Amino acid sequence: MRYNKDMISVAILGATGMVGQKLIQLLTDHPYFTITELVASKKSSGRAYKDACTWLQNTPIPSDIATMTVKELYSPLKSIPVFSGLDSSVAGDAETHYASMGHTVISNAKNHRMDTGVPLIIPEINPHHADLIATQDFLYQDANKKGCIITNPNCATIVASLALAPLYARFGLESVYITSMQAISGAGYPGVSSMEIIDNVIPYIADEEEKLESEAKKILGSLSKNNTDIIPAPFAMHALCTRVPVIDGHSLHIIVEFSSDSSNTISEEAIIDAWNTFTGTPQVQALPLAPTQPVLYFSQKNRPQPRLDRDRDKGMGICIGRLKPCRRKTEVLPKPSHSTKHYSFFALGHNTIRGAAGAAVLNAELLHHKRLLT
Amino acid sequence: MRYNKDMISVAILGATGMVGQKLIQLLTDHPYFTITELVASKKSSGRAYKDACTWLQNTPIPSDIATMTVKELYSPLKSIPVFSGLDSSVAGDAETHYASMGHTVISNAKNHRMDTGVPLIIPEINPHHADLIATQDFLYQDANKKGCIITNPNCATIVASLALAPLYARFGLESVYITSMQAISGAGYPGVSSMEIIDNVIPYIADEEEKLESEAKKILGSLSKNNTDIIPAPFAMHALCTRVPVIDGHSLHIIVEFSSDSSNTISEEAIIDAWNTFTGTPQVQALPLAPTQPVLYFSQKNRPQPRLDRDRDKGMGICIGRLKPCRRKTEVLPKPSHSTKHYSFFALGHNTIRGAAGAAVLNAELLHHKRLLT
Amino acid sequence: MRYNKDMISVAILGATGMVGQKLIQLLTDHPYFTITELVASKKSSGRAYKDACTWLQNTPIPSDIATMTVKELYSPLKSIPVFSGLDSSVAGDAETHYASMGHTVISNAKNHRMDTGVPLIIPEINPHHADLIATQDFLYQDANKKGCIITNPNCATIVASLALAPLYARFGLESVYITSMQAISGAGYPGVSSMEIIDNVIPYIADEEEKLESEAKKILGSLSKNNTDIIPAPFAMHALCTRVPVIDGHSLHIIVEFSSDSSNTISEEAIIDAWNTFTGTPQVQALPLAPTQPVLYFSQKNRPQPRLDRDRDKGMGICIGRLKPCRRKTEVLPKPSHSTKHYSFFALGHNTIRGAAGAAVLNAELLHHKRLLT
Amino acid sequence: MRYNKDMISVAILGATGMVGQKLIQLLTDHPYFTITELVASKKSSGRAYKDACTWLQNTPIPSDIATMTVKELYSPLKSIPVFSGLDSSVAGDAETHYASMGHTVISNAKNHRMDTGVPLIIPEINPHHADLIATQDFLYQDANKKGCIITNPNCATIVASLALAPLYARFGLESVYITSMQAISGAGYPGVSSMEIIDNVIPYIADEEEKLESEAKKILGSLSKNNTDIIPAPFAMHALCTRVPVIDGHSLHIIVEFSSDSSNTISEEAIIDAWNTFTGTPQVQALPLAPTQPVLYFSQKNRPQPRLDRDRDKGMGICIGRLKPCRRKTEVLPKPSHSTKHYSFFALGHNTIRGAAGAAVLNAELLHHKRLLT
Repeated sequence: MRYNKDMISVAILGATGMVGQKLIQLLTDHPYFTITELVASKKSSGRAYKDACTWLQNTPIPSDIATMTVKELYSPLKSIPVFSGLDSSVAGDAETHYASMGHTVISNAKNHRMDTGVPLIIPEINPHHADLIATQDFLYQDANKKGCIITNPNCATIVASLALAPLYARFGLESVYITSMQAISGAGYPGVSSMEIIDNVIPYIADEEEKLESEAKKILGSLSKNNTDIIPAPFAMHALCTRVPVIDGHSLHIIVEFSSDSSNTISEEAIIDAWNTFTGTPQVQALPLAPTQPVLYFSQKNRPQPRLDRDRDKGMGICIGRLKPCRRKTEVLPKPSHSTKHYSFFALGHNTIRGAAGAAVLNAELLHHKRLLT
Repeated sequence: MRYNKDMISVAILGATGMVGQKLIQLLTDHPYFTITELVASKKSSGRAYKDACTWLQNTPIPSDIATMTVKELYSPLKSIPVFSGLDSSVAGDAETHYASMGHTVISNAKNHRMDTGVPLIIPEINPHHADLIATQDFLYQDANKKGCIITNPNCATIVASLALAPLYARFGLESVYITSMQAISGAGYPGVSSMEIIDNVIPYIADEEEKLESEAKKILGSLSKNNTDIIPAPFAMHALCTRVPVIDGHSLHIIVEFSSDSSNTISEEAIIDAWNTFTGTPQVQALPLAPTQPVLYFSQKNRPQPRLDRDRDKGMGICIGRLKPCRRKTEVLPKPSHSTKHYSFFALGHNTIRGAAGAAVLNAELLHHKRLLT
Repeated sequence: MRYNKDMISVAILGATGMVGQKLIQLLTDHPYFTITELVASKKSSGRAYKDACTWLQNTPIPSDIATMTVKELYSPLKSIPVFSGLDSSVAGDAETHYASMGHTVISNAKNHRMDTGVPLIIPEINPHHADLIATQDFLYQDANKKGCIITNPNCATIVASLALAPLYARFGLESVYITSMQAISGAGYPGVSSMEIIDNVIPYIADEEEKLESEAKKILGSLSKNNTDIIPAPFAMHALCTRVPVIDGHSLHIIVEFSSDSSNTISEEAIIDAWNTFTGTPQVQALPLAPTQPVLYFSQKNRPQPRLDRDRDKGMGICIGRLKPCRRKTEVLPKPSHSTKHYSFFALGHNTIRGAAGAAVLNAELLHHKRLLT
Repeated sequence: MRYNKDMISVAILGATGMVGQKLIQLLTDHPYFTITELVASKKSSGRAYKDACTWLQNTPIPSDIATMTVKELYSPLKSIPVFSGLDSSVAGDAETHYASMGHTVISNAKNHRMDTGVPLIIPEINPHHADLIATQDFLYQDANKKGCIITNPNCATIVASLALAPLYARFGLESVYITSMQAISGAGYPGVSSMEIIDNVIPYIADEEEKLESEAKKILGSLSKNNTDIIPAPFAMHALCTRVPVIDGHSLHIIVEFSSDSSNTISEEAIIDAWNTFTGTPQVQALPLAPTQPVLYFSQKNRPQPRLDRDRDKGMGICIGRLKPCRRKTEVLPKPSHSTKHYSFFALGHNTIRGAAGAAVLNAELLHHKRLLT
């Protein structure tokens, strides 16, 4: 791991978990950040990281991390930026605590995502929502401890939001139906028992549908006039979430109904163009973990596929395919015609990179770019 | 295998394939039928079945079948009823041939399903469509050879149709959106390469969406006045079909929009009641392979699941769960209310039993009951 | 579940676990036994079985079992025979307790297997070891409470022992090397995390090698002169145990070195004959769960396979294949010759039926036959 | 792909297959070689590579390769070095043809491996066997066309040989027993049907055991006095090969009997030291694809594992664990003692990198270093 005096020291909460491990992987050799503190539960604290952790990545533990002693959650920390890969059972209070102590908490946990005043950010979509941080003064801070919390969405929400954002911006959305096929790594470790998922599909993931149905609307929402709150985007969102025997990569079948006030002539070409040309602050500012092309449409009929495409653009690129207009009732008439209001497509993203650890790192890079980290 | 003089001899076309193997399993010890002829391609003909076949079932080849010599396709056959598990590349002409030679072809192949005059039957739903057989005279027969073709639907269509039929009958349907997660056994053997599907989802199955989008509407359609054709059911149907790493059992997420002329108060209870009370000719007549309860709703949140539930009721029962009303745009208003027109649910059925070989056997049992087999 | 007044009431300890569930499946409609008491940990006690249990079998919970109230471990029980599918963390004391209270404990747990005086039985191999029960008086009993413990071996040991027993009896064994590829169900539920085993092999299972290396030698051992102890069979046994992504069915590659004092002409035919003709008390007495043929040799090159063959003979049959003499150093000489002392083969058995619950049930059937259950 | 005038142009035979795809991946941005010709069967020839190939790697096809037109096998080629990832059904004649036309054929196919005069090389073990090339004059060449064939071993053999070489050199080997658990990618595409391998183990791979039993002895053999042939290493080798549901990474359980003339005190520490200090020409010369440490011993009990460790050192490192002395018969005596002649361990390597494409590339790098490529 490189280090120079301009590097920003960071801590990782929940360092032994799956998101924590991925954060360590992604922050190794990072040009802005260097990990100097690892934090986990009492069970792990006081032990060398390599002994406290069931490391399940396919690269070795970086050597300086391996021997770092794990601190206990709620210990005082020196680093200002604190990444949180904490489990939701403890993240709520712990993140509030560190924010109140003056830390900038960059969280992947669900607990504060929907809180008023807490930005829920995908840097390509709503970087300006970071301005909400200013409103957190009264919530978390002593006069002299200007800590804050910034969150990234649920893994499936990120895939959906990046697929929907270009369409929402250009065509407007009336309603969205999502069927997800989610990877086991989304449940962490030990997470899903092998007895449950091999040769199987599980048609339920606790709380996941609620997250999908609420978070995307906050991300695509607009800042209220006084910049203190988000007005959610006004489309309908319905989801069924399933777990499938895939290690990494969440797949979504998404059906969209474009706004009734959009013209009647939304073509496949226009939709694909909206995706392929979509870009944002991370690309303009060339943030280190930014994908070159955030959303890519595959013209091959049988793509994208999790195993082949989840690693596109460092695992930060969303992959889309299978766009087609929905068949409508009128097709039973002699001359079938397709509605241009309803389309369906298939979207894929790497759930532990783009959908979790990478999302948090990109948020931190955004804050750094906005000079909000110091 | 039992045998008595009243048993009906049957032949199996495509006996070495996956559907053929399942037909052999299901017809072993069948009270009506006894297999006396096995038919396959030139490559297999003249060999003992056990040598010609890559048997992939988890029960041994029945001993009398194992040593039976395989006949070549287009050979003359003695049995009147002929089950066809042929691949679609050869089924079209071969089935026409055997029908024209006076055989009753009970086919699982796609080739003739949508032909005018050919019944496409799920015995619980549209047994009366079998009357179409009478119109096949001019198509397939010599004056003295009253052969015919009767077909069962595609595997995913059967699951969808049995889930939709009770709703269509009671509430009417405006539109249907389906996301399928289909098992590898649906592609036969060798079928899907393990390099393609382990740790993966493939978002495309050739021709599958077209089958789902057309066949269900024929099954739920009505006979024309002169009983010579089917008028398809007038709802819209849209599907995306995916392949997942599951051995047996097709899973479907189905979104339904009930007819606009149905009352505004369709409750979850009424829908579940429609499913749980659904019954038909196979149940009334106690046909040998008929499931006791064709459609069963699971109240547990995480069910049905392919590995746990595909074998319900001898693999002939459709399993449903996760019924919920779709969220609508109005939810962003202060008082959210659920539309009672849009619902979504999860459906599951065994694709090689209920969805293929078992479907053909139940069709044959229906013909036997209707005295159309002699 | 049938019931008549001659049926023997039994209790199941650890009823909610994987072995407990399998015991319930196997004892449903059993001709001797009827389940009247279900016992589990404090967490489950007082609840209806269906609510206390994560049922993971592919048949529904029998209806009378589903509503039975679970008792807490150490509660007084009415049934004399008590099946134990308890986890080893609690089985030791609990089984001793119930034996001391006069119950006949038929255990699948590891805790007492190697205890002096406790029979470790595979009914086809060493039914006479059951005589050891008489020696348990001083260990577990009040004068008037003649309880006892009888055990079945570890799942991998059962497969190995049934494969080795015919060879040991006929040819003698000098040394045995085993490589196991074990199914995930062997670890119970939740057991092996899907994050660990999908697309993977784990080359270690805690305590498993020690069990394989010791238990088989006790089973194949002989009763001491005074019938109070077992003298282990004197061959060497070495094992490496791995976990593979298979749901049910333990596979073993076994290398045997026959005794140096056996003749030099052990042929493949003789070995296969030893397996195929192997039979014992369960077959002679036609015990209800006895396989017709305990060990079957497959001549096909690519068999047996877990998914295709684990269910042979109700899941109680051991399957063997790939027998071949080991290549020896002398092969580099012009005229290769095979040693007839070293052979290798591949063995397979269903780990939760033959290897666990079915083993316990067959032991109980043996005790019933020997009139040791009342 | 970089290019400068000193780059060596190379052709790839069998470019559309799995080994061909991996060769393309590994040769992208290679410092010595640049791919200028792609060769495949008639079916693919004349088409752009991206259209001719079912690309199954998790990185995109390099853009210059994607549009390259595929040549037909037996077409004249301009590149002197020709990598062969051909299927064995065509490799024999085609490789002889290209060698006779003056090309240096670096082959991964099995056809010529055991031919007299053809080196079978693992650069860390037997780089000097490359001298055999000089003897190929009379076999393959016109006076002016000094082509030749050099081969790398079978994928499982490479893992075994790199694990055994350090032991053979230091302690001598009497006999070796191997149980392999091989990945599906070893069978190419479509290769193993998903219907055969999900939830399963297949205890047979055609020809694989013969390759393991013969190739390792050639690699560890010695050059004859006149340098025209290899005298195989004189230990006994016995193998059972199985296929398991793993995508990449062959696992081997290996039992070794050290030479009877070695001292009786071979310790675990000495064995582990032999592995961890093993190094050779690729490391000394810092060849581009050489692993830093060819063989690494893992002290954790449950390692190595295919999914976690197959990518070690660019997929070129062999991973070993679970070393333990074999239990011997004498253990039944009061004072158990371990033989120091028999040990067992678990070895793992990436079968399509270290075991195939990477092996060929490292062989080419070796030839380049030895100035045998021009």
